[in-house]
Formats: sequence, structure tokens, C-alpha cells
Amino acid sequence: MDLSSLADICNQKCRLKTDLPLVAGISGGADSLALADCLSTLGYRLIVAHYDHRLREGSQADADYVKDFARLKDLPFETGGGDVLEYAQKINLSIEEAARRMRYKFLFDICRKHDAQALAVGHTADDQVETVLMHMLRGAGLSGMKGMTWRSIIEVFDPTIPLVRPLLGVWRKDTEEWCRSHGLDARIDPTNRDTAYARNRLRREIIPLLESYSPHARQHIQKMAEHLQGDYRILSQLVDDQYSTCLKSSGEGYLCFNRTTLEEYDPALQAWILRKAAFQLVRELRDFDAAAVARCLGSIATTSAGWKSDLPGGLRIHVDATEVTLFSWQADLPGLDWPQLAEGFDAMLPSPGELVLGNDWLLRAEDTDLETAYMRALDNEDPQQAWIDMDSLPGRLTVRRAPAGQRFTPLGMSTGSQKLSDFWVNVRLPQRARAGWPVIFSGNEVVWVPGFRLAHAFRLTARSRSVLRLTMIKQAT
Amino acid sequence: MDLSSLADICNQKCRLKTDLPLVAGISGGADSLALADCLSTLGYRLIVAHYDHRLREGSQADADYVKDFARLKDLPFETGGGDVLEYAQKINLSIEEAARRMRYKFLFDICRKHDAQALAVGHTADDQVETVLMHMLRGAGLSGMKGMTWRSIIEVFDPTIPLVRPLLGVWRKDTEEWCRSHGLDARIDPTNRDTAYARNRLRREIIPLLESYSPHARQHIQKMAEHLQGDYRILSQLVDDQYSTCLKSSGEGYLCFNRTTLEEYDPALQAWILRKAAFQLVRELRDFDAAAVARCLGSIATTSAGWKSDLPGGLRIHVDATEVTLFSWQADLPGLDWPQLAEGFDAMLPSPGELVLGNDWLLRAEDTDLETAYMRALDNEDPQQAWIDMDSLPGRLTVRRAPAGQRFTPLGMSTGSQKLSDFWVNVRLPQRARAGWPVIFSGNEVVWVPGFRLAHAFRLTARSRSVLRLTMIKQAT
Repeated sequence: MDLSSLADICNQKCRLKTDLPLVAGISGGADSLALADCLSTLGYRLIVAHYDHRLREGSQADADYVKDFARLKDLPFETGGGDVLEYAQKINLSIEEAARRMRYKFLFDICRKHDAQALAVGHTADDQVETVLMHMLRGAGLSGMKGMTWRSIIEVFDPTIPLVRPLLGVWRKDTEEWCRSHGLDARIDPTNRDTAYARNRLRREIIPLLESYSPHARQHIQKMAEHLQGDYRILSQLVDDQYSTCLKSSGEGYLCFNRTTLEEYDPALQAWILRKAAFQLVRELRDFDAAAVARCLGSIATTSAGWKSDLPGGLRIHVDATEVTLFSWQADLPGLDWPQLAEGFDAMLPSPGELVLGNDWLLRAEDTDLETAYMRALDNEDPQQAWIDMDSLPGRLTVRRAPAGQRFTPLGMSTGSQKLSDFWVNVRLPQRARAGWPVIFSGNEVVWVPGFRLAHAFRLTARSRSVLRLTMIKQAT
Repeated sequence: MDLSSLADICNQKCRLKTDLPLVAGISGGADSLALADCLSTLGYRLIVAHYDHRLREGSQADADYVKDFARLKDLPFETGGGDVLEYAQKINLSIEEAARRMRYKFLFDICRKHDAQALAVGHTADDQVETVLMHMLRGAGLSGMKGMTWRSIIEVFDPTIPLVRPLLGVWRKDTEEWCRSHGLDARIDPTNRDTAYARNRLRREIIPLLESYSPHARQHIQKMAEHLQGDYRILSQLVDDQYSTCLKSSGEGYLCFNRTTLEEYDPALQAWILRKAAFQLVRELRDFDAAAVARCLGSIATTSAGWKSDLPGGLRIHVDATEVTLFSWQADLPGLDWPQLAEGFDAMLPSPGELVLGNDWLLRAEDTDLETAYMRALDNEDPQQAWIDMDSLPGRLTVRRAPAGQRFTPLGMSTGSQKLSDFWVNVRLPQRARAGWPVIFSGNEVVWVPGFRLAHAFRLTARSRSVLRLTMIKQAT
């Protein structure tokens, strides 16, 4: 380890100032001890913070050791701890991930308490290599393969205080050597030797095997990550630019893009823009899976009429002739005009005939011959049309809003019924569209919920004699 | 293996037409046999081509087997072979790389002979995973990590006929299964079992270990490559665009960029542009190393006056206030105006005094005190100034072109001398600048080659009494 190049890294890559408080997360291992020792030697206003995961006997001794180190160096010391096992069980996380979250939560609390410019941690080049390999083996794109960065914001912990990693270019053995030659008796975490932990298996088994294959494998992987960070930076900039170019409008819970602009981009760029949009809408979205993205891209490329689909994270996408809208299903979307009935609307549906619903929508009822009806009803995928068995209707068809508590037996449910209010939740109709949604009744029974589902009792069967085709149509404006 | 999705891949990803000739490179292993069998079933106009590497006993039997297969399927058959070992030794390549080159050379010859639309080879998803891992372990950026592509041009083999890989999404075991269930008795290359070959060690040892760590490691690596191919495509497009934006002029052997535009780009993008430029100038350039790129970027960011440096591949870079020029050192650069003497120029250098050389350059001689001279000469890094020991000069200083055969003892060479013509080659002065280059003489001895080197005999020593400072200056225009 060379102090003057570390000073350059702190200054240029981590963008640290010597005259502002800086919290360092110190486990007591060689990496973090060397980090604290170097940063304090370089004159940084360091606060030493230690988190006790209480995962093994002797963890208190580590805390004491770090405390002694801080006293010796005359640095402020902060400590905290928690029950990682309990937390891991409670929210169903791996122990490693639970430990990470509790540790960072504590460390960023300390940062805020001391008004620190950043949190410094002791991740080394070895940690980088392990991280990149883990990402690769568990499935990653460029954002995973680029590994950890010198300076980054982790929104879930703090939206403004960055996490910095000054040792990302230093190998673990050099931090160990630093500790040895500076009289620092680094603590060895015995769990590090336990290959049951995924990262440790990488460290002890896989990386040595890779090095037997290519002696500089570790160095090459580290360089690759650095290289990919540059590429990621360029790409992110491009994505930001093109995202802004094709964003047409936005509001609480929705983002609406110009489809013509979007579909001219390379599909890979469209995918970046969709993922960025999804993360804008759902900050904590962890996995916006490739299959969902592929479905969206497919429909952007081919859909001629309207198309919508559910996506991970409670999101939906709607693609029409000119717009691509990504939204959470509670969102209040100005751009999507649903069929809506005015309060108190109650009208007979002439059969055959048409009924204007307002908002440019109309309902149409047509007589049709049985043979055609059978054929078309069989592979109907358009929820805006339905074929009903005339003889099964208890009375004339009327169109009105459904009263509170209305029940309904959707097609496919042969016995019993469900509340229409539950049905709305199942089909994810946005809250605000529910009250005014047109429903086709016969007497007090729901016959058809246009746009969604026919009632089971009124479906076409082999015994049907006369059939009516119902269609709900959005008229061109 | 599913024929209908393979048909889609051939059509959409590989962009093959069924009605044009298509050469398939067939080793006789399961991958390539399955490929040939499927392509012929799908109705492609296939020519089966087999290359015998003659690296082991029994290779002739493979050739016979492939020939029989072609006859059975009623497909044209072409075969060739060569001495891989001899070729590998001759040009100092690994056996695997020598085999690859000889095989592709043969296969593309067959493509040209049959006017084929493409060469199809049997690389599978497993080959992809192995390739990506090899690249990673040996050092790679995005272009290596993206792996092999469905369709690509390999300029060194053929500038227009693409190489296509229809099986890149198919796993090796599925090609084996295809062969078993279609009565194809695939040949097993016994060298495949020999882990002495790098790729086979990956296949037999490393990938199984990675899968014991993460069961879907192979699938994840394959998906990663596919993902990175999209990112590479976007990035390449961006690089092409920005390259064109900042390219100011170009000619045989040189490319000149607008420095102001270039230096506003992210350094990672500057690096892409420089690498692209280098490959434009030297097609066969294999390794434009990161250190050279970093040096260029550093000088683009900081150089105020002129700066030049040698780069790999016989390239040089020149950075001045407004331009960044990349050129091969034989190039005829209009933009770089060197000091040049007119033919027959022969003038005394007044000491002290100035001499105008033409082309906006002048030479200056100044008296200076010994102490300052010692201090400054010691760490002089500017080849356009020199300090000489006045008392060592045999006569007055004159400036003229060097005659043919002129010899010279550069500083640091304490005995003997070298031809100035050899010196020019060593310092890589472009051919066209040599004849007119100003040289400072005393009598018939070269005292200083401004811009490059002082003569050893006239250097400042501890015994020097009087000293002259010489400077060659480019005047602002």
C-alpha cells in the first residue's frame, strides 16, 4: 500500500475532503484497520464506527479491540449491535444480507449524527473480484458485472451521503502487510474460514482454481470491472439523454413515453429505458425480470391497437398507437380514457342496437348466426367483445354502474360467486375507474363486465339456440 | 432442440435465406452434425465442408464419416487439410489458434468457391460460456465479455461473407440428444478429453465447480453474454456517432480529431474513440493496451503545448492546443508542421543570437550562468532545448541539413557513433521530415539534433567553464 497513491484515490475517485468529518466502518479485520490507519495518517477527520453482528463468541472482543485502536489513534469511536439472526428470520433474508443491512443502517445513522461527508468502508480489490464473480454466477448484466464503485449513493440507506471505497484498487494481502508492518494486530473473523458462506467458497476454492488456469485471473477480473464501470457510465448517460428525449409526460405513479421515438431505438436501449422508468416508479424494485422486459419490447414493436400487461413490482404497461405508459396500478392516469358512466346512468341496451356510454365509448349488440358465434367465441382474446346465450337471460339487457356489494360469477367459476369489488382487485382495475365502469345487467344479475369477463351463466353452450354479440368500442376522436 | 425455433433464429438472428448456398463447417462432432442435419431438414442449400487438422490418429476416419453423412443427405461435400503443427511452429502460435486459422481459411475459401451467403458453424451455448470465461480470465472488456455473436464479419477471413452461429442458444447435450435420436453416430474427438487444452480444462473442471456453487451458472453466463451484446451494440453506435462528430480530417495513415470536442466526452468514451481510430489505421492491430490509452487520455486532459508519444502497432499520437492526431509514423501529415530547412540552407548561428529557420521556427542561442545551466540541464525533459559546453566546440556553430552518410554520437553513447539515418529510424521521425530537419554543426561534427538529442561530446560536464543554452522555438502564427 502506497499512501500517496491512496491520497490521490481519496481525492480524485472518492472525492473526499480532509477537513470534513468522515465515518469509517471498521470490523477490526486487516482491510478496515489498514483503511482507518491510512485515512487517519492522511489527515482525514475520521470517526471510527464498529457494528457488532453478535453472530459468534468473541465478537465483543473485536469491538473492544477497535475501541482500543480508536483511543490509541485519538479518534472518536461509535459502536452498535443487533440480533442479526432474529432479523434474518423475521424478514426471510440470508444471514449475510441481514447482517449487511443492519450494519449499513447503523453506519449511516452515525454518518448523519456526525454530519459526515461520506461513509468509508474497507472493500478491497479481492472483494471486488468476488463480487463480480458472484454477480456473474447468479445472473447479471453490465450493472452487476461492473462491480462496486469508488463512490456511490445507496438510496435505501441515505439519499445524499455517499459510500466510498478507497481500497478498491488494493489487494487484501497488502492490507495485511500494512497491518503487520504497522503493529496492528488485525482480528481474524473465524467465519471467514467457513466455506459454507457463498463468498468464502469463492475466495477459498473457486478463485484459486481460476488462478491455476490463468495466473493473473484476479487482476484481469478487477481490470474488467474498472473497464466496465467506464462503459456503464457512458451508457447511463446515453440512457438518461434518450429517456428524457422520449418521455412525453409524467405524474404521480406514471410515466408516458412517445412510442414512435422509443421504437426507433435499439431494443437494448429500449430495455434500459423501461428498466430506468420502472425504478423511477418503484424505488425498491429489486428485480425487473428479463421476461417482463422482453414482453414489453415485443408489444412496443408489434402492437397496433391497445395492449396492456402486468409487470413485476405492481406495475402495468399500456401500449397504444402513439404512447407507451408505465404505471403503478393505483396511479391516476390522465392519458388513459376508460369507459365511464356518469353517476345515475341507467339505460336499456337495444338488442340489436347501440348505446352511447360517453367518453367516446359505445356498446353494440348484434344478432349473429350460431355457427359463426361458436367459431369466433372459441378463440376470442379480445375482452371487449362477448357472445351471450339469449335464452338464458332473465330479462332485458340494461347498462348501469354496479351497486355496492354487487356479486358476480365470472366465466370459469361454475359454482358460487364473488364480490365485484374483489373482482376489480383481481383484474387490477385502477381504483378510480371502478365506480363508473359500465356493467351489463339482466335484471339484477351481471351479464358481462366489458373489457374483462362474461358471467358464467350466460356463456354460449352446445345447447344455445340464439346468440347476441356484444362489443364495447372506443370511437376515434 | 426445436426445429421451429431454430428456423426463427436462422431467419431473424443469422439472417439466412433458404434459397442461397450456405457452407457449414462440420467436424463430425455432435454439435456440427446436428447443425448440418437441422439446416438440411429446414431446406437450406447446404454445402458440407470438413477440415482435417491431422493432429491425431483417426482424423481421416472423421473426414470419411462426414463425407458419408453428406452423401447420405445428398449434400455437396468439400474437404481439405493441412499440417497444423508445422504452421503453429512457423508463426509461433498455440496449436489451437493455428488450427482455428487454417480451418477458417479453408472454410471461407469454400464459401467463395460456392458463392455462399455465409459460413455456418456449430458453436453452442456451452462454447459461448467457455469463450466468455476464457476472455474474462485472460483479461477482457465489454467486447470480450459479450462473447460470440449470431452473425459477424471476421475481416481477416472475408470482408463480406458473415460467420453465423445458429446453435448459440442450444446446449451441447441437446445436440448430442438430437444425434442420438436421429441415428447420427457423432465422432468424439479424444483431444476433447485432454484437459491440457485450456478450453477443455474450463469445460471439465472449472464450469462444473461453478455449477456446484450456483446451479444455473452456465445459463446465467450465457444470458449475461446476450445482455452484454445489446449493450455493446448501443455503445458501438454511440461511439460511431461521436467519432464522426469529433473527427476533423483524415488521410492515408492519419486521423485528426477536434480536441475541444473530444475532451468534453467521458474518458471511457474517449478511450473507445481512440481504440476505434487505432483499428481504423491498423486493421490487424490485436492489442492496443490500456496503458497506452491511459497515456493518451492523460495528455488530452492536461497537455497545454504539443505532446507526442509512441503507441503500439507503429502508431503515434500528437496532441496540440486544438487537435489530437493519431497516425502511423510513415504517414504524410498535412497538419503537423515540423522545422524544415530549405535545400542548400547553411547559416551561422550567432551566439548569443537568433536564427530564423523558416516555417515559423527559430533557433536561439543564449549565454547562461553555469549554476543555472547545471540545475536546469539535469532534469530537462524538453528535447527542444539543450545546454552545450562552449569550450568543447571545434569551431563556430552552423545550421544546415545533414549530408547523406553523416554520423553522430548521441548523448549517452560514450564510444563510437551511429549513422544519422539510423538515428532517424530509432526516434521514428517520419521519412518525409528527415532530409530538411535542421542540424546544428560545429565544423563537420553534429552538435545537436534539435527536437531529439545532443551529441555526447558537447554535453555539460563537471569540467565545463562556459555554457550556451540552445532553444528551438515554434512561433505563434
